[in-house]
Amino acid sequence: MNKSDLEKLYIPPLDKEIGKEVSAYLDTLTKPIGSLGRLERLAIELAEMTGHRFPIVTPPAAIVFAADHGITAEGVSAFPKEVTAQMVMNFLEGGAAMNVFCRQIGANMSIVDVGVAEDISHDQLISRKINRGTKNFLKEEAMTDAEAFEALTIGREEAAGMIASGAKSLIVGEVGIGNTTSASALLGAVTGKPIQELTGPGTGLTEEGLIHKQRMIEQAIEERQPNRHDPIDILKKLGGLEITAMAGAMLEAAKNRTPIIVDGFICTVAAIIATEIHPEAFQYMIAGHQSKELGHQMALQRLGKEPILNLDMRLGEGTGAAVAFPVVQAATNMLHEMATFSEAGVSEKE
Amino acid sequence: MNKSDLEKLYIPPLDKEIGKEVSAYLDTLTKPIGSLGRLERLAIELAEMTGHRFPIVTPPAAIVFAADHGITAEGVSAFPKEVTAQMVMNFLEGGAAMNVFCRQIGANMSIVDVGVAEDISHDQLISRKINRGTKNFLKEEAMTDAEAFEALTIGREEAAGMIASGAKSLIVGEVGIGNTTSASALLGAVTGKPIQELTGPGTGLTEEGLIHKQRMIEQAIEERQPNRHDPIDILKKLGGLEITAMAGAMLEAAKNRTPIIVDGFICTVAAIIATEIHPEAFQYMIAGHQSKELGHQMALQRLGKEPILNLDMRLGEGTGAAVAFPVVQAATNMLHEMATFSEAGVSEKE
Repeated sequence: MNKSDLEKLYIPPLDKEIGKEVSAYLDTLTKPIGSLGRLERLAIELAEMTGHRFPIVTPPAAIVFAADHGITAEGVSAFPKEVTAQMVMNFLEGGAAMNVFCRQIGANMSIVDVGVAEDISHDQLISRKINRGTKNFLKEEAMTDAEAFEALTIGREEAAGMIASGAKSLIVGEVGIGNTTSASALLGAVTGKPIQELTGPGTGLTEEGLIHKQRMIEQAIEERQPNRHDPIDILKKLGGLEITAMAGAMLEAAKNRTPIIVDGFICTVAAIIATEIHPEAFQYMIAGHQSKELGHQMALQRLGKEPILNLDMRLGEGTGAAVAFPVVQAATNMLHEMATFSEAGVSEKE
Repeated sequence: MNKSDLEKLYIPPLDKEIGKEVSAYLDTLTKPIGSLGRLERLAIELAEMTGHRFPIVTPPAAIVFAADHGITAEGVSAFPKEVTAQMVMNFLEGGAAMNVFCRQIGANMSIVDVGVAEDISHDQLISRKINRGTKNFLKEEAMTDAEAFEALTIGREEAAGMIASGAKSLIVGEVGIGNTTSASALLGAVTGKPIQELTGPGTGLTEEGLIHKQRMIEQAIEERQPNRHDPIDILKKLGGLEITAMAGAMLEAAKNRTPIIVDGFICTVAAIIATEIHPEAFQYMIAGHQSKELGHQMALQRLGKEPILNLDMRLGEGTGAAVAFPVVQAATNMLHEMATFSEAGVSEKE
């Protein structure tokens, strides 16, 4: 994929007519009008996205993209860099939080190495390593133009594969020590907002560590001068490979009218980048949860989405989206299975 | 059951030692400390309730109590009274929202008639009718002392049956036209707060209808003079039969250390009454959701519980608790299935 392929990407508009039909149908179901609140709004949105009066979101698929970040050389994370590869192994062995929640919701989960520094050998790993992590974006551009397009393409291909295999909704997750630093830098570059308002402690920095992280990001943006109106330029200069692949996966899901459950801070930043690349992508996204990571609230506001859950989570991996999924499923089940007033012989409001 | 049986009811204290063990164990799992937020707190609470380091909440059971309310003669509901019996039939045929969400979470659901005005014949119905609804509590006491104790006993017996059949957590729901009026009156009687602050439109009253409902409740409390320090006196004077049975079911679950997922306004008022009867019952309750019904926020504050979900729902039936259940289940799955740092060979924080 190159710039021109990206410009040609067609994302269909929502089917607002079907949304109106579903809205009217909801009022015939055996409940006071509007009494299922957000579930009713989700049902309408899902119908508009999928173009079906009775939308289906199961089975969901989850794709976890993994990569390292050169910026970790600046001491911006509470965990050592080798944890990326170790956590990828934990995912492959089924022991990460995301594995647990994906099993609960019946999601097919894949883990894709797009840029882990170390070599990983495991028969379940999808190995599409573009490079051994990004470059240290304080000192140089995180990746090349070609690498950014490759990451977008891999994201799109992996999502296309999941959809072809029957996935009816998509969660994209990530693992990559240092990636909240990259995500905060991206959000700062896109919004122009002060870095201290959108940079949190990630996996658990001290206050001193957090101030250092914020300074590194400010300095990096000053040095790299990303073009606020060019998302590829921003990705290339600030990384990371997994965040870029996530944006690609979301663009592909939108193209296929497949609802996307957006996770926390890093995933929301990837969603914002996808929307910068193609504004219509926004319409296929549902915000799974409000993360505790500083900056996520602003990121959600920028994306224009209201989260389903607010459980003080800040793990990433896609976990917030996976835990939110049953609520999305409840919205579709309501539509499929509830009786109408006339079917049930129930009198309507006086 | 009589007053003396109720006083003898023993509800065991929480196992705080196991809570500490689980809290320490959570910090060994492959995630930044505390990063699963509310899920971690739920895991600790469930361990303390059940007395197990690895608590189990599946399968859940749901008991829906149905009854009519004499106060509907005063025009306090948007729906006609016969809707109670019609909705019971809808539940029995599987078409109500609560059926849909119980199927999703694998809950065994029963529907218990403790006071529906009409006769209902269905092989799935548990018929334990105490009376054909309560009396109109504007004009006389809603029920007798004996009826209140009978409703509590039925609630306890139905919950005991579910627990004996293997239920590991309990949801109590309700159906009964007019029951938000009874619940608002109960909450007003317990808290002494102004009625207009805790009385909402229920299934959908107009503004005029709401003002009328509030006046009826104020007048009824003035006439009946319930004793704020005697929950049985309050129940007897203001009803309803299903709310009383719900309180009984929650007392029985607490006695058996079975976690209770509390639903919206009516269920929370029943939970408050259960706690007035036996203060330790409170410890076995988890608030499923924040309802949109006015008064629910105050009810949750009185109960001292923070809701898991806030989805603008206001249907009742137990639906908010059922939709919240997967979050509770995720907390236990996390504890059972996640790998520790040492098991997974992942380096800890630097």
